[in-house]
Amino acid sequence: MTTAPWRDRSLPADVRVTDLLSRMTLEEKTAQLYGVWVGATADGDGVAPHQHDMTADYDFDDLIRHGLGQLTRPFGTAPVDPESGARALARAQRRIAASGRFGIPAIAHEECLAGFTAWRATAYPVPLAWGATFNPALVEEMARRIGADLRSVGVHQGLAPVLDVVRDPRWGRVEETIGEDPYLVGTIGAAYVRGLESTGIVATLKHFAGYASSAGARNLAPVRAGTREFADVTLPPFELALREGGARSVMAAYTETDGVPASADPGLLTELLRTEWNFTGTVVSDYFGIGFLQTLHRVAGTPAEAAHAALAAGIDVELPTLKCYGQPLVEAVRAGEVPESLVDRAARRVLLQKCELGLLDEDWQPEPPEGPVDLDSTANRALARRLAEESVVLLDNPDGALPLDSDTRIAVIGPRAADPLAMLGCYSFPSHVLPRHPETPTGIEIPPLLEALRAELPDAKVTFAEGCGVADPDPSGIEEAVARAAEADVCVAVLGDRAGLFGRGTSGEGCDATDLQLPGIQADLLDALVATGVPVVLVLLTGRPYALGRWHGRLGAVVQAFFPGEEGGPAVAGVLSGRVNPSGRLPVSVPRDPGGQPWTYLQPPLGLAGEVSNLDPTPLYPFGHGRSYTTFEWSEAEGTPETTIPTNGSYDLSVTIRNTGDRPGAEVVQLYLHDPVGSVTRPDVRLIGYRRLELEPGQSRRVTFHFHADLSSFTDRTGDRIVEPGALELRLAASSGDVRHTAPVRLTGPARVLGRDRRLLCPTSTEG
Amino acid sequence: MTTAPWRDRSLPADVRVTDLLSRMTLEEKTAQLYGVWVGATADGDGVAPHQHDMTADYDFDDLIRHGLGQLTRPFGTAPVDPESGARALARAQRRIAASGRFGIPAIAHEECLAGFTAWRATAYPVPLAWGATFNPALVEEMARRIGADLRSVGVHQGLAPVLDVVRDPRWGRVEETIGEDPYLVGTIGAAYVRGLESTGIVATLKHFAGYASSAGARNLAPVRAGTREFADVTLPPFELALREGGARSVMAAYTETDGVPASADPGLLTELLRTEWNFTGTVVSDYFGIGFLQTLHRVAGTPAEAAHAALAAGIDVELPTLKCYGQPLVEAVRAGEVPESLVDRAARRVLLQKCELGLLDEDWQPEPPEGPVDLDSTANRALARRLAEESVVLLDNPDGALPLDSDTRIAVIGPRAADPLAMLGCYSFPSHVLPRHPETPTGIEIPPLLEALRAELPDAKVTFAEGCGVADPDPSGIEEAVARAAEADVCVAVLGDRAGLFGRGTSGEGCDATDLQLPGIQADLLDALVATGVPVVLVLLTGRPYALGRWHGRLGAVVQAFFPGEEGGPAVAGVLSGRVNPSGRLPVSVPRDPGGQPWTYLQPPLGLAGEVSNLDPTPLYPFGHGRSYTTFEWSEAEGTPETTIPTNGSYDLSVTIRNTGDRPGAEVVQLYLHDPVGSVTRPDVRLIGYRRLELEPGQSRRVTFHFHADLSSFTDRTGDRIVEPGALELRLAASSGDVRHTAPVRLTGPARVLGRDRRLLCPTSTEG
Repeated sequence: MTTAPWRDRSLPADVRVTDLLSRMTLEEKTAQLYGVWVGATADGDGVAPHQHDMTADYDFDDLIRHGLGQLTRPFGTAPVDPESGARALARAQRRIAASGRFGIPAIAHEECLAGFTAWRATAYPVPLAWGATFNPALVEEMARRIGADLRSVGVHQGLAPVLDVVRDPRWGRVEETIGEDPYLVGTIGAAYVRGLESTGIVATLKHFAGYASSAGARNLAPVRAGTREFADVTLPPFELALREGGARSVMAAYTETDGVPASADPGLLTELLRTEWNFTGTVVSDYFGIGFLQTLHRVAGTPAEAAHAALAAGIDVELPTLKCYGQPLVEAVRAGEVPESLVDRAARRVLLQKCELGLLDEDWQPEPPEGPVDLDSTANRALARRLAEESVVLLDNPDGALPLDSDTRIAVIGPRAADPLAMLGCYSFPSHVLPRHPETPTGIEIPPLLEALRAELPDAKVTFAEGCGVADPDPSGIEEAVARAAEADVCVAVLGDRAGLFGRGTSGEGCDATDLQLPGIQADLLDALVATGVPVVLVLLTGRPYALGRWHGRLGAVVQAFFPGEEGGPAVAGVLSGRVNPSGRLPVSVPRDPGGQPWTYLQPPLGLAGEVSNLDPTPLYPFGHGRSYTTFEWSEAEGTPETTIPTNGSYDLSVTIRNTGDRPGAEVVQLYLHDPVGSVTRPDVRLIGYRRLELEPGQSRRVTFHFHADLSSFTDRTGDRIVEPGALELRLAASSGDVRHTAPVRLTGPARVLGRDRRLLCPTSTEG
Repeated sequence: MTTAPWRDRSLPADVRVTDLLSRMTLEEKTAQLYGVWVGATADGDGVAPHQHDMTADYDFDDLIRHGLGQLTRPFGTAPVDPESGARALARAQRRIAASGRFGIPAIAHEECLAGFTAWRATAYPVPLAWGATFNPALVEEMARRIGADLRSVGVHQGLAPVLDVVRDPRWGRVEETIGEDPYLVGTIGAAYVRGLESTGIVATLKHFAGYASSAGARNLAPVRAGTREFADVTLPPFELALREGGARSVMAAYTETDGVPASADPGLLTELLRTEWNFTGTVVSDYFGIGFLQTLHRVAGTPAEAAHAALAAGIDVELPTLKCYGQPLVEAVRAGEVPESLVDRAARRVLLQKCELGLLDEDWQPEPPEGPVDLDSTANRALARRLAEESVVLLDNPDGALPLDSDTRIAVIGPRAADPLAMLGCYSFPSHVLPRHPETPTGIEIPPLLEALRAELPDAKVTFAEGCGVADPDPSGIEEAVARAAEADVCVAVLGDRAGLFGRGTSGEGCDATDLQLPGIQADLLDALVATGVPVVLVLLTGRPYALGRWHGRLGAVVQAFFPGEEGGPAVAGVLSGRVNPSGRLPVSVPRDPGGQPWTYLQPPLGLAGEVSNLDPTPLYPFGHGRSYTTFEWSEAEGTPETTIPTNGSYDLSVTIRNTGDRPGAEVVQLYLHDPVGSVTRPDVRLIGYRRLELEPGQSRRVTFHFHADLSSFTDRTGDRIVEPGALELRLAASSGDVRHTAPVRLTGPARVLGRDRRLLCPTSTEG
């Protein structure tokens, strides 16, 4: 008996898959297009909206009798030892392979945004903290570690990163994003993808596209956006992560933009993604998102119509289960309502990916680990620590209240000081499953800030009071907190969010805010602490920026840490003690006022303060802002001599940064583009390059930005991406609000229409 | 000497204008394209943003030596007797005519939104109140009176109505709009236009288009909207007012949508407006709006470039002055940078309008009035009263706290109770000029509510305390207010806005809100009043809806009156006493929470409450809501027998309304469309028809809605406006949240692509 061509690994993948498809029944092909969620139930552990859409009672053997495309979250929903989980997954895969005629296992996918979302796995800082590091290399290393861990237990695909660009900071999922600038999101996101893909794990870009612009910041609300905003803000991170990262999967967004649901949009999922961008991987649905075409969007009347719309648009795989791509799709194809060619197109993509993953080979099954599996290794923790340390943003320190003295009396106050979960976002394991398993320990060690600070400053006298709950309206604890503060030399107020899902937190998926006032009565607590006259160091552990204008000029120092992960306590404590010199920069603007949203810094002139409205949207701390315990001198800013360049030319701009203080520190040199006159309105400034520089005391380094005219491109009135001739200003800056050097450049020659090969990056090089 | 052809009124207008243009120099032609603002100065009476853009010192005779297109606001900026103003205007016109070679006067334009915005002219209720009447006939009558008054003093053009559809109630100009539904805005707006145009006054539709969607509700902020939202929400009122109203002028909006300023958008101002809609009138700029292309939008580098962009897009007239269309335009044409044909195109439109207005005739000059001119006649006041009465919305009256007893003790509390200006919006004369003339009396009698209530209930014991200021943070008056309330049987809390311009009010142009909390500390005042236990009747005199969820179930009654105009005091007092049976219906939703904006009721399913977000945007009082002192029975709802109709068919739906109470009252029967499944997402419901019915006790009337399938049309994915086959539901309702009868209709046959002749209206007829 000869080996079937599809089993022959010497043959090209497309030949193998063509052969395999020709042997499959309709049921076998559609079985490749959906997932099964083992362990999740319709009556709800509440880890996904509309989980009640799941088949309430199913028979696993029956479901897999034609094979199976995807296994949904084998680890994520219960506290299971990694090694047991890995063995259970291996068993499930054997069962799936044995069940179908072809012996092909499923692709196993997991959540892995801020680390593998499983019990006992490392909880890294959330993406907003990655953005604050301005350090793609470190994020890439993190993703390599995440990928290796996923791989070690048999997972093939990770549902990360999130490349949504913040458009309204009230949205609950802001913590899952990298920030409000497409270049920052795209470069950090591409680094994550490179790291994950380098281990063989399929990275999944989400959410494609537009989700972050939901009206009123309500999760899943309709998106009001025009095609230019979509092209110039929403899409670039995806283009970057595909071209510079090599992601092999894309997740369609839940939302609709201007009436068209992403999941039913062939213009987006096929014409743009595949035809224009040459993407060859798989497009997966967001959980239950295909069914939403019927139930929440009402652009389909039945599950079969929803399946048809999604398949035609270009969604290859229904996750997490089979409501539409299961029986309804089979019947619709049999009835002639859906062309079988659409099923074939999707199945081919899934099988090509399985082929690439080795899952069509005889020896697809790796040996499951025999001994214990450590998903939170010392090396992981060290990296989690470094990321956390680099992500802490010192917003203000006007009178040097920080670093704290080592032998002082410190009142640590606030609902986030003593809770280990204050360090984690909603896509970390415990936050994700807590509602179902309130008794679940995190499985990992997470020192809260109070404990870490005591360890950090053993000679200090540290007292503590919670003051109030995160979202609790009860003010009875404020009195004691004020008393503690009044007895101290300095008060460290640790405020912020509790991450959760669907209304169970103050930040996280489905936990949106109506305004940017601190949650609950934490603003009242802070008012009371400030009123004591004791210097207050405000530490924020939040999933979004909150309005701080109310306390401007009245705080000893302000530290913004987002959710810094399992090593966040020691990292923040290190900043407070001075062991760590803060070097994070804001990936999102911090506003003055709680209202007036949406706003981001990417405003054309009309979006800036002006005499035409009483409202001044100028942020209190601008995008890119962050202070240090040392000082930096910027000097010798100089560009290439020729400042008049063609519209396909380039220009190098250099600056020397010197650490003029007495401790090591890092400066983040940022390059912004200002386009004085354009054929459409342009953001007043936007980030087009950055470079983080670590400098010893006295050390200086020279950084050069290699600017190409492509980076000034934008979408014109006809929808083309063009480079327009005319004057530009390149601005070397310490933040979007702190320009240190302006270089005028003039582009000459005809306007250029750019294609798929346009330059997306502004490379940097350093000397010294 | 024979008469030149252009003076010959027996010739067709285009022949006359062609002849005239052929005789004109470039300077003479451009002089027709701008205005001069006599009486306004660059150092600012602050009635327009960027007034400092005006030529600081000009010589009137020099400016008019080539003629003049427009005279800007001859009445609006100072308290001048109407008859003196009319004579001054006539003198100015003679001077202009005498100055140019052709003896042609200017078109004189004025503001006239809520009445002629001049001293001693009737201040009618604001447009939001017109919307609340659901009574287009009454608005048409008002506009006829406004037009007659304008005409009596020599004005030719009125800068009204505002047809912006509310998209974010925080915007300061919400008071100038008719509401949040395009059908309501369009039908009431068209009625206004018909009334104004019937007197020969040129109506000016503003602001074309998109202005109301400014991001974050900041005046003039960029608009994020897609083409479908634009086509289906923003544009329909303009289409209605042009087709059903016959407006002869359109004002280009200040704003940009998705990067393209309206004032530089030929797609909007020429392709859509002229080519598709066949508009033949003039397009005028918003004040200083052409200069903004350079200074605020930066799509032009110089005033000449701004002039070029605006002229090419289709703006014929620069208002209020000549920054761009004056010398810069002349020089640019001479330099060959701007084609003279663009000047000719615009000048032809202006001169055609002048021809139509009789201004090219020898006898263009009407006799100025000799005796006194009464712009606030008894008939005007009676109409202002009726409009005000019909506009008051009784939101809630759970225990019958209203009407008030005639001999009770009433504590009238609040910063809006005793101020006559509480009745007026920012486009009424005194609000518009107060900053410059704080000493200016209104020139008209405006009884405040306190005075009107005392007159209305002479036997009641009425006490008064202000409690707090409108926006003042000083709480010292609350104590006295609480004492007054505690001594009374009922407390009437009169809260709301102070209308003003550019930050000088809490509502009005340039007075935007960051959230929908009542201004200043009025919420604290209301809390304190409610805490007394005395029943509180809340009366709101506001320019926007405010969040009332905080007091839900704790108020005796809630009356929403917007700005009801000079007769608003007696009108509201009449509702409180029971002399007037309230019949207004909400033209905007009243939300529960101050945050979470933007939101309007026109939401596709994703925009409604759901388990995917913790935020519930369901309003406290929905669009269309309003109570009465009588009761209505809805019965015999019945449609034509055939419920399956072709996509070009129609369906009649009737219902009988009976006044089952013991006093006369009006019910507003509303027809909403629900489209269960569409090829793009559709608003869950939208208004497609309405009819206000006045009914004596015991009287019944039967109303029939003549629904045509065209009314179900929407903009599809390709940009076509189509009628799609499939199921529909017509919902007869007392508000968008109170459906009384649902009629299923099925459209069959092919989808139809509609053209310019599509039906825009749902006619109604009544029996009984």
